[in-house]
Amino acid sequence: MTSPSPFPPGATVADVGEFGLIAEFVQRFEQGPAVFVGPGDDGAVLRAPRGHVVVSTDLLVENRHFRRDWATAHDIGRRAAAQNLSDINAMGGRATGLTVGLALPPDLPAQWVVELADGIAEEAALVGASVIGGDLTRGTEVVIAVTVLGQCEVAPVLRSGARPGDVVAIAGRQGWAAAGLAVLGRGFRSPRSVVTAHQRPEPPYDAGPAAAKAGATSMIDISDGLVADAGHVASRSGVLIDLLTSAFPLDEPLIAVGAALGADPMSFVLGGGEDHPLVATFPAGTDLPDGFRVIGSVSAPGDAGPGVTVDGEAYGGVPGHTHF
Amino acid sequence: MTSPSPFPPGATVADVGEFGLIAEFVQRFEQGPAVFVGPGDDGAVLRAPRGHVVVSTDLLVENRHFRRDWATAHDIGRRAAAQNLSDINAMGGRATGLTVGLALPPDLPAQWVVELADGIAEEAALVGASVIGGDLTRGTEVVIAVTVLGQCEVAPVLRSGARPGDVVAIAGRQGWAAAGLAVLGRGFRSPRSVVTAHQRPEPPYDAGPAAAKAGATSMIDISDGLVADAGHVASRSGVLIDLLTSAFPLDEPLIAVGAALGADPMSFVLGGGEDHPLVATFPAGTDLPDGFRVIGSVSAPGDAGPGVTVDGEAYGGVPGHTHF
Repeated sequence: MTSPSPFPPGATVADVGEFGLIAEFVQRFEQGPAVFVGPGDDGAVLRAPRGHVVVSTDLLVENRHFRRDWATAHDIGRRAAAQNLSDINAMGGRATGLTVGLALPPDLPAQWVVELADGIAEEAALVGASVIGGDLTRGTEVVIAVTVLGQCEVAPVLRSGARPGDVVAIAGRQGWAAAGLAVLGRGFRSPRSVVTAHQRPEPPYDAGPAAAKAGATSMIDISDGLVADAGHVASRSGVLIDLLTSAFPLDEPLIAVGAALGADPMSFVLGGGEDHPLVATFPAGTDLPDGFRVIGSVSAPGDAGPGVTVDGEAYGGVPGHTHF
Repeated sequence: MTSPSPFPPGATVADVGEFGLIAEFVQRFEQGPAVFVGPGDDGAVLRAPRGHVVVSTDLLVENRHFRRDWATAHDIGRRAAAQNLSDINAMGGRATGLTVGLALPPDLPAQWVVELADGIAEEAALVGASVIGGDLTRGTEVVIAVTVLGQCEVAPVLRSGARPGDVVAIAGRQGWAAAGLAVLGRGFRSPRSVVTAHQRPEPPYDAGPAAAKAGATSMIDISDGLVADAGHVASRSGVLIDLLTSAFPLDEPLIAVGAALGADPMSFVLGGGEDHPLVATFPAGTDLPDGFRVIGSVSAPGDAGPGVTVDGEAYGGVPGHTHF
């Protein structure tokens, strides 16, 4: 998915300039019906007919969250949007608008930035959200700051609502992006399926609103690691969450990567992030919405307090990614 | 305005960690009545009772937008918030919530980050806005990405509504921050008044909503430069804007800086940014709201098309700051 270049070959960000880039962006960012005032003014104005707005912000920093030699600008843009859209999904909402702040080295190819913008717009279009504003400035490394705004049809689903007796369920793929990252980190490019999963996650965007309507008591998206993120639900809800490894039949590519790298493939499932599936809790007996399957249960905390166990035991592996 | 340190002396960002910093932030960020769900979940939820939300994003990059040796963390935080809050002001709105994304070098003192957060919260409190969420990650330079959300009581005031016959008016100080920047750039720290103006702008937060109610036809905040930003209004509105230097009696500190640096002090007024006053156009005869004074007029564009003149002539100086 390469865009035709609007710039002379080899043009850099400094050559094209702030206003040249913005002009190129604005005509690429389609404005949906939720947009009252789009890009180009001091602020954008988004309709919020339900009387509230859900908002989330994420930063992606070059060589920490992405590498320009590991993924195309287009894929990096899709991923930057996806991880933010996923946060609105995890509240049970639907995204309506995004703002994109970019810090860019002046010698960066201008075409790279345009393809990044195309990727962001393409991912946003999956949920009908529009890029409504942003900011461009110079930096020594690429920083992508995305803020996403959206709406919930029913009450937002928080991390704090899990109750003893609830079932724990997941929607979406888990462990593939971590396997892809492990492969890329060793200098390999295959199996292609897990590399692609890391380059371009596919959050289950319909699952969040569906879970909210079905009565989910808590919800989170798995961005840092399954055990780590389930731990946020456990501590905020004051409960014990037990995850069952038997609920995760290992997909063939994960087995292949584990064998090739000498790693336990279940570690990709339990400690991996960046696939952005949703983990939600539901009262026992709930008719789970499409795409969700049970992976564990919620109980009252024991003497050790709120937390996560795996097959009834403390988890000895790495629960997820830390940011410092 | 120094905060008591919650961390051991010399503790770095890496020592305290993501969750340590977030815990410290969350208890410092008071949550106002507009907040339905505050920090700590996948997304925050802000009330938007008027059925819309105004949003704006700005990035500040270390050594480009601020220098840690030129201003305290507290002042940098106030400025980061102020320049974003000013964008909502320029739409005629009032800010209700902010998100703050921070990329931080791991060896940065943790106390610096806490004082930055205090500064952001303190500036936000001036308009009753709450810090409702954010993201922390590692970077090689400090990047502060602020997104601000707000509401308009009447229709938002755009850049595109200026009409021939309107008067041009300003609310707030203009030129002081540029004089302060010029002084700092030469290694001086005085006159103190202009240095302080650069370190901590004081946008006229009541002027935006007042201008909207009074029937302003267009509005912008002056962040890059008076002539440059008035030019955005001119081009978006398809008009000619003439600014009168006689409307800007030169304040004593500007004269002093001009004399010391061999610069025309009017260049600080016409080309300077970062004071964040508002420039608005009003139909002739409008009873201007408190704080606004006339600085020019709007007419139909001549053969040269939309643009800005100064005392009826093309402006030969630097109209403002460019970002690449």
